[in-house]
Amino acid sequence: MSKQGDRKIILGIAGLGTVGAGVVKIVERHVGLLADRAGCAIEIRAVSARDRSRDRGIDVSGYDWYDNPVDLASPESGVNVVVELIGGSDGPALALAREALGRGIGFVTANKALIATHGKELAALAEEKGAALKFEAAVAGGIPIIKALREGLAGNAIASVRGILNGTCNYILTRMEREGLAFDDVLKDAQQLGYAEADPTFDIDGIDTAHKTAILASLAFGTEPDIENLPTEGIRTIAPVDIEYAKELGYRIKLLGVAQHTDEGIETRVHPAMVPTRAAIANVMDATNAVVVEGDAVGQTVYEGAGAGEGPTASAVLADILDVARGVGGPSLGIPADRLKASAPVPVEKHRGTYYIRLRVGDRPGVMADITKILAEENVSIESMLQRGRADDGGVYIVLTTHETVEASVAATLDRFTQLDCVLETPTMLRIEA
Amino acid sequence: MSKQGDRKIILGIAGLGTVGAGVVKIVERHVGLLADRAGCAIEIRAVSARDRSRDRGIDVSGYDWYDNPVDLASPESGVNVVVELIGGSDGPALALAREALGRGIGFVTANKALIATHGKELAALAEEKGAALKFEAAVAGGIPIIKALREGLAGNAIASVRGILNGTCNYILTRMEREGLAFDDVLKDAQQLGYAEADPTFDIDGIDTAHKTAILASLAFGTEPDIENLPTEGIRTIAPVDIEYAKELGYRIKLLGVAQHTDEGIETRVHPAMVPTRAAIANVMDATNAVVVEGDAVGQTVYEGAGAGEGPTASAVLADILDVARGVGGPSLGIPADRLKASAPVPVEKHRGTYYIRLRVGDRPGVMADITKILAEENVSIESMLQRGRADDGGVYIVLTTHETVEASVAATLDRFTQLDCVLETPTMLRIEA
Repeated sequence: MSKQGDRKIILGIAGLGTVGAGVVKIVERHVGLLADRAGCAIEIRAVSARDRSRDRGIDVSGYDWYDNPVDLASPESGVNVVVELIGGSDGPALALAREALGRGIGFVTANKALIATHGKELAALAEEKGAALKFEAAVAGGIPIIKALREGLAGNAIASVRGILNGTCNYILTRMEREGLAFDDVLKDAQQLGYAEADPTFDIDGIDTAHKTAILASLAFGTEPDIENLPTEGIRTIAPVDIEYAKELGYRIKLLGVAQHTDEGIETRVHPAMVPTRAAIANVMDATNAVVVEGDAVGQTVYEGAGAGEGPTASAVLADILDVARGVGGPSLGIPADRLKASAPVPVEKHRGTYYIRLRVGDRPGVMADITKILAEENVSIESMLQRGRADDGGVYIVLTTHETVEASVAATLDRFTQLDCVLETPTMLRIEA
Repeated sequence: MSKQGDRKIILGIAGLGTVGAGVVKIVERHVGLLADRAGCAIEIRAVSARDRSRDRGIDVSGYDWYDNPVDLASPESGVNVVVELIGGSDGPALALAREALGRGIGFVTANKALIATHGKELAALAEEKGAALKFEAAVAGGIPIIKALREGLAGNAIASVRGILNGTCNYILTRMEREGLAFDDVLKDAQQLGYAEADPTFDIDGIDTAHKTAILASLAFGTEPDIENLPTEGIRTIAPVDIEYAKELGYRIKLLGVAQHTDEGIETRVHPAMVPTRAAIANVMDATNAVVVEGDAVGQTVYEGAGAGEGPTASAVLADILDVARGVGGPSLGIPADRLKASAPVPVEKHRGTYYIRLRVGDRPGVMADITKILAEENVSIESMLQRGRADDGGVYIVLTTHETVEASVAATLDRFTQLDCVLETPTMLRIEA
């Protein structure tokens, strides 16, 4: 809006992996376009990475090199916006964030662990110093969901945010369903194809999704980002037989991050869930991400796109850089850091919902009576029940879905099932999300 | 970011129809939430509408009343952000926009006709005076697509924007498909249910979609909004038989607004199109809106939600008000008004694509030879051809789809078909959007 004079955005980029290289490419490719949109020139002045000699498919010899990323935020660097693409909740990423914001320098990051863990501290520092703290790339890659929640839907009291936030998990679940393969086989293949890391723990155990969910919950509900109290389950235990039963029952299994306003308070949770195949989110396949937001005025809005990769993540980083250039204000987490409510998530035992339970049982008289007796005593009411075929490894499967009930009752039921002689393995439970 | 002191947003609302009442309700319901998010208090000071005594389900007696909406922008009103919900490309809406922006007062509008027609002039005035001009509610209701294009995807060269932007048309097409009804019957029903206006011209002839497309094209491609040169077709001519053939061929018919970068330049167009049923946009049903954006870095992102109605539109208006409060800067149309390129859309005759053509012909020897001869001579290559059943009113239908061709050839082909004795009615043509 205001005349920009000879103001200029001078970037220092920490981390030159895939995303860092992507940011460099866009800044170099779209010089004129970005200047028009930013209202001022944008240039890269300095970079930092672990290995100076590595071939990254980009020429960084024209930029100042720093071995220590924290030096990008030094007065000598001339940098006025630091882009942090190192990763990790602590270590150099945190040190760089504190240094940059502490000096009133804009800080743009794709680091979900950093924001999920230290978001409140950094937002407070940014506000104190009048510096911009931006993290669009931290959640759902190229989908501008941070901006949608913080700005586009800011007129709404948010009822819930649900997302498919991890492309690796969605890719694995998609292939398990399409090809009828076991988890381990798809994982191995995904690793070879570059869809999963050599150490896939972060993705498949839901930790990555939990970081993103913690950030979305903070923006949606004005609470401190809280990764400590976020019940998190991954997809390792999903068996092909569950995917088949899901299909038969009209569901698809997705790893969801959920932040939801309930009568008990704010629920945050990460777990595989059965979602009805008619729901928009059920039809998000392969490595695509999607977020569904319910607001009191707007109703439901849905956002879909690539959740990772060079281009999509760099696109989000550039959006943040342009926001800083344009002087887009407002608090980083939607409301001032000192107004963020302490996170007091509802314990998962209090979650009310419907459930899918699969048991492998010995095929003999009285089994069904034992099972239904426990359900009745724990006050869990059955919506549907299937007993069919013989399990590969002996026994038969009993699959049931419940009417709405509280999770504590389901947990107690599962405990008692496990103790039954006729139950041959630990029961499988999946939450159903309507 | 900066301390707001005792700054305050003082609203003057022009137009108290459904959306105006929705804005009043949100501002009154969420006083504390909005103040937290805005960084300052937001209050309504003054309102203006045609009829002071009408019951709107809200109490406006506490607000100053102006018979002339332009007076909301007078120094005496005390208003510092005007919300324009009158509608219409000229008249009082335009006068109010000029008055408010001319005085450096923020101007928030849901008026697509105004921005599509006078967007460049108003953006230039806003920039000259350092005032905010915001119009999130003008396109796709509650979906924050203006913000996504202007900010969230600002790091991308945009390849295309395609949207279902009119809920009335999508509702009618959905019911025609689901219930096998004729256009006129569904329209009548939609009017009774409030999904269509008494005079539905604006919606069903594509004019509303064209206004929105002109705005999206401007944001996507940095061109002046241009409603004059935007080829526009509505859905009146869609027959149940076309919907049936679409289904058989794996498509669904949707009214699309398209702005697309091609080798020839920027194409903008509004027309019903056949979209593959597997595409996200094909599965957007009833009155829901959706926009699909292709960017060079981000790839494809999809945005879905309610495109109209009290809550969704008011949600978008509030997002703009909060942006103004937070000092969200940057030019209204994505780049400074004086940098907008003149619109020089590619004539629709140059559009390259694939086509669906339906003919009703007399069922006699030689017909197929006549038709295929013309296609060959006009260089239109056939992808598929169906001849089946007898049309209700005599003759048989021939339905064909083409390989990629230029629209001028299709137009010439259709002209020649029309002149054939064996062709019993004006041929139907629909573009296929992959």
